[in-house]
Amino acid sequence: MTLSERNLIEHIRKNAATSSVNGLIKGIGDDCSVFGKSATGAWLVSTDMLVDGVHFNRKWHPPRLLGRKSIAVNLSDIAAMGGIPRFFLLSVSLPPQLSPEWLFQWLDGVSAMLSEYDCALIGGDTVTGKEMNISVTVLGEQHPSGVIYRTGAGEGDTVYVSGPLGSSAAGLEILKKTGGWDAARIQHTWEVLINSHLDPIPQVRLGQVLCASGSVSAMQDISDGLATDLSHICKESGVRAVIQEQRLPSLPVLDEVCQTLQLRRLDCILRGGEDYQLVFCVRRGSEKDLEEYVKKSGNFAIYPIGTIEKGQGVFLEGRKADRSEITFQGYEHLV
Amino acid sequence: MTLSERNLIEHIRKNAATSSVNGLIKGIGDDCSVFGKSATGAWLVSTDMLVDGVHFNRKWHPPRLLGRKSIAVNLSDIAAMGGIPRFFLLSVSLPPQLSPEWLFQWLDGVSAMLSEYDCALIGGDTVTGKEMNISVTVLGEQHPSGVIYRTGAGEGDTVYVSGPLGSSAAGLEILKKTGGWDAARIQHTWEVLINSHLDPIPQVRLGQVLCASGSVSAMQDISDGLATDLSHICKESGVRAVIQEQRLPSLPVLDEVCQTLQLRRLDCILRGGEDYQLVFCVRRGSEKDLEEYVKKSGNFAIYPIGTIEKGQGVFLEGRKADRSEITFQGYEHLV
Repeated sequence: MTLSERNLIEHIRKNAATSSVNGLIKGIGDDCSVFGKSATGAWLVSTDMLVDGVHFNRKWHPPRLLGRKSIAVNLSDIAAMGGIPRFFLLSVSLPPQLSPEWLFQWLDGVSAMLSEYDCALIGGDTVTGKEMNISVTVLGEQHPSGVIYRTGAGEGDTVYVSGPLGSSAAGLEILKKTGGWDAARIQHTWEVLINSHLDPIPQVRLGQVLCASGSVSAMQDISDGLATDLSHICKESGVRAVIQEQRLPSLPVLDEVCQTLQLRRLDCILRGGEDYQLVFCVRRGSEKDLEEYVKKSGNFAIYPIGTIEKGQGVFLEGRKADRSEITFQGYEHLV
Repeated sequence: MTLSERNLIEHIRKNAATSSVNGLIKGIGDDCSVFGKSATGAWLVSTDMLVDGVHFNRKWHPPRLLGRKSIAVNLSDIAAMGGIPRFFLLSVSLPPQLSPEWLFQWLDGVSAMLSEYDCALIGGDTVTGKEMNISVTVLGEQHPSGVIYRTGAGEGDTVYVSGPLGSSAAGLEILKKTGGWDAARIQHTWEVLINSHLDPIPQVRLGQVLCASGSVSAMQDISDGLATDLSHICKESGVRAVIQEQRLPSLPVLDEVCQTLQLRRLDCILRGGEDYQLVFCVRRGSEKDLEEYVKKSGNFAIYPIGTIEKGQGVFLEGRKADRSEITFQGYEHLV
């Protein structure tokens, strides 16, 4: 018997108190939990654990970039609810052979990222272990306009993503195939994919803009691949999403890399994970207003990719309007 | 070059923003950090990481009790500031060979403890790793009477502890020497020490009573041994503590176990760690009132063990009034 991550979370969730707890606004089942005493003073909290060899590989991940990514992953959870990140707690299990140089570079990356997003490190723990394990908890404030949950998607809504998909997955494949970052062997044009994997940019500011727009009914970040992350929205909202294959955005260089490395482009885009873009639903009829509001608010590109229907699950529609189900077919760690 | 846990925390602390951060009331440097917008609505947060073979040993730690202890360790941090525990986030790295039976028993222990302390699990992460790693974050509310920090100890204060010390350390030694919990080989009278190690009781309710008393100037929980934990209070308050050897409370059975296993009783008491009792300072002249208030508030025993003086460091005073310095001589994990 094996337990997948999702099974275990379901088990914990059933056992976890989810209502009538003093101060709890939203328990397990979204990018962040929400707590606090009033609708205006709510806090968001989320936590992630990263293990060497599973979630990152020290062989090719420069410590400074890994420090940045350790923070970025959690910033993305705050972004997914439109929140304002404030505080971090950071625990690390350090193998004895880890050099202080590595560690201080990693900490520099952490510090730089905290500073870029105006966040403070307010706690943590350091322990000795056989393998490196990084546990990060983020606390954020609710946006004055409220919180965007996964639960609000409705029939007729348009599904958007915030940027090209598949870049991180392809970047990781390049690193795996070349055995690490070797400038001599990696084509210059491919670096953008590698950077997407090693140093992802969380969509914190865009998340807040989308929250302030008032037009977004549901939102989630793309950490486990669009197929899985959009499935969470559909499950929590009790709806079906149909996305059009030809509308899925990706970087032009992705095609070339997929050909060279014999990857399936659609697998990278739908199942790859770690793009840390946002997937969100815009209320039927508000699409044009939303697009204008987003354009006005900053240098953001957003891409409509599909529609919300009655039903359940996530379906991919090909060029001939053929549909195949891709519900929860994203990246998943098996326990 | 090795970095001790304390060195690393000092480095992080120097790099961490500690003031003028929106919503931050108290950063790194106490049992919990404190954040929130007003003095009455503040939240406490703390995090701990536990690694198999370092902080616990699955060979002799029954999974249900380990689940309880995973939560207890963090409840103790809330207790140390007189707070009210509310929410937990729990991340685990699970080795593939871990049985689902073990895992569900561990989760049962977690759930039981959460329920006993009226707390809700509101987040977490499950990942695959080579070694088991448990990362726990607790969120608590500030007590209506405020927060007790480490920083308030003043000259003339009396130092107290909330219960017998050294039990957990002796319990661990019994388990190590017998190779685990073997009822046939372990004397019945020793079980209380083993239980202190395997299933410690955090002093949550007493912490709140001490907070409500208004007489406690500084407080901390005893996780790394009295010598180290009282040193934190002295360092943060800029004072010296002198404790009397003959006033240090311990269970009667500790003497017997120390003789049989050739342990030094004073090492267990001062340096052993993991007792999860509270050490706190009571303002000069308030001792009698405090003792009466505590007695009135519940079935709590508290023990005066020494005095706060001008100066720095922690000193142990023997029967002949001879003093030896024991500052930061408690248990410490070396990185």
